Amino acid sequence: MDQLETDDQPGYVERQVRRHRNNDSAVTADNIGQEWPVALVFNGISHAVMMCTPRDLEAFAVGFSLSEGIVERGSDIHDIEVYFRDDGVALPHAEVHLQVVQQAFASLKDKRRALAGRTGCGVCGIESIELLDLQAERVPDTGFLARLAPDAIERAARELPAHQHLTKLTGGLHAAAWCDETGAVRYAFEDVGRHNALDKLIGHLVLRREDTTQGFVFLSSRASYELVRKSARVGVPMVATISAPTSLAIAIAKQAGLRLVSFARENGFVEYDVD
Amino acid sequence: MDQLETDDQPGYVERQVRRHRNNDSAVTADNIGQEWPVALVFNGISHAVMMCTPRDLEAFAVGFSLSEGIVERGSDIHDIEVYFRDDGVALPHAEVHLQVVQQAFASLKDKRRALAGRTGCGVCGIESIELLDLQAERVPDTGFLARLAPDAIERAARELPAHQHLTKLTGGLHAAAWCDETGAVRYAFEDVGRHNALDKLIGHLVLRREDTTQGFVFLSSRASYELVRKSARVGVPMVATISAPTSLAIAIAKQAGLRLVSFARENGFVEYDVD
Repeated sequence: MDQLETDDQPGYVERQVRRHRNNDSAVTADNIGQEWPVALVFNGISHAVMMCTPRDLEAFAVGFSLSEGIVERGSDIHDIEVYFRDDGVALPHAEVHLQVVQQAFASLKDKRRALAGRTGCGVCGIESIELLDLQAERVPDTGFLARLAPDAIERAARELPAHQHLTKLTGGLHAAAWCDETGAVRYAFEDVGRHNALDKLIGHLVLRREDTTQGFVFLSSRASYELVRKSARVGVPMVATISAPTSLAIAIAKQAGLRLVSFARENGFVEYDVD
Repeated sequence: MDQLETDDQPGYVERQVRRHRNNDSAVTADNIGQEWPVALVFNGISHAVMMCTPRDLEAFAVGFSLSEGIVERGSDIHDIEVYFRDDGVALPHAEVHLQVVQQAFASLKDKRRALAGRTGCGVCGIESIELLDLQAERVPDTGFLARLAPDAIERAARELPAHQHLTKLTGGLHAAAWCDETGAVRYAFEDVGRHNALDKLIGHLVLRREDTTQGFVFLSSRASYELVRKSARVGVPMVATISAPTSLAIAIAKQAGLRLVSFARENGFVEYDVD
């Protein structure tokens, strides 16, 4: 790519907008969340394009690689380079180049062979039900849930908004936060895609060598299949979401032994599939 | 598949939940939005799996085929059969079998050959930036916008909630509505995925032989790339969303000559990229 840039983008852009309110209107500046195509390139071969907010892309690529099962551990990734391209001609986009261990790359190539000819569209490019991984492994019980403070979920709900900087600016991004056993928000990431925000968070934890079994994920969104699946894959013991869960999110959480709570607010939450 | 069922699912399931509120808790029944893997099979070949609410799947398959450019017109689809499978053993899922004209199937096969070996994951399984279609065609100017009532957007915002039956039950689905020039809601569809709700709406319009250039789409969600792209592909002149747009949604709307308004509420809205 020409005109490589390696600095993070701000996550939002300023645009002229016209606000219409009660039959009156005015032109003003507003902040818009950035959505860029981001290509993930493994050992020189482009594997996927995600629509993503172009910040924290190194963490994003690490989290995606782990939560999609491309690598088994962070140390399987040897090198990451992020390139932004915004030359004013083509629509802006980014590329993340990862060098992964030969074994992971070989298994990715095997997968490519097995799936040769696919024109997948949908769940991670999956083309048939048989290829869909609906068998979640059990998350390990490391005693975290037993140590969780009784008001941890409510505390996380109270603290999250202070970490949603891009949402405050744009009114339109999702956040994924990592909380400790007291419910304190340790890290938070934002993205136009809720699954990307979660991948950024997972990647950041792995880059900092934090234990992904010793904390919980708090999401500003609903709980759907892929969010629970990604969390389970890295052993997260609990996922809390501000909005509703889907039937499949509940089923996968149960299978994985992951605690799922939704409608998590400052004064309560809802827990699923209880007896 | 064994145990075929062809009746629509309700869109929600009842589950036992425990509500925690202000340090008190109680077990109660709650309704959860259904999220099922739905395989789209063209002329016997499985092409994609979408996570979808298993209602209105015939409309969904027609809308998806059109908005993803698999067929050019509704009459390119000769036959559709929808099968549900919920045997209590495997996780429930559905298959939609479409028979499409030979030309569309040949072009799908060509695409499969061209993309042979991909392991795409992300935007419709796209694996590299070059394969991403960021060149939106212009939507035709059929004079609809000139006829739009001054309060049409506000009216649609006021009317939509009455059509969100599943959202009322579950608190967690997205709606896509078709509105006429007065802002009256003509049809509305709901799904756990906003892009699926839009595909159901597009498919329904096409099945009823409605003119997709003579009305506007109103979405309960944010406006992101794929929603504008899908709408533009079938010539929709305007998309209004309740929540924020992304930078790429604005760029694609401008390229297509599609009017995009967001933060559409009962007392106003915001219009983008004005001069």
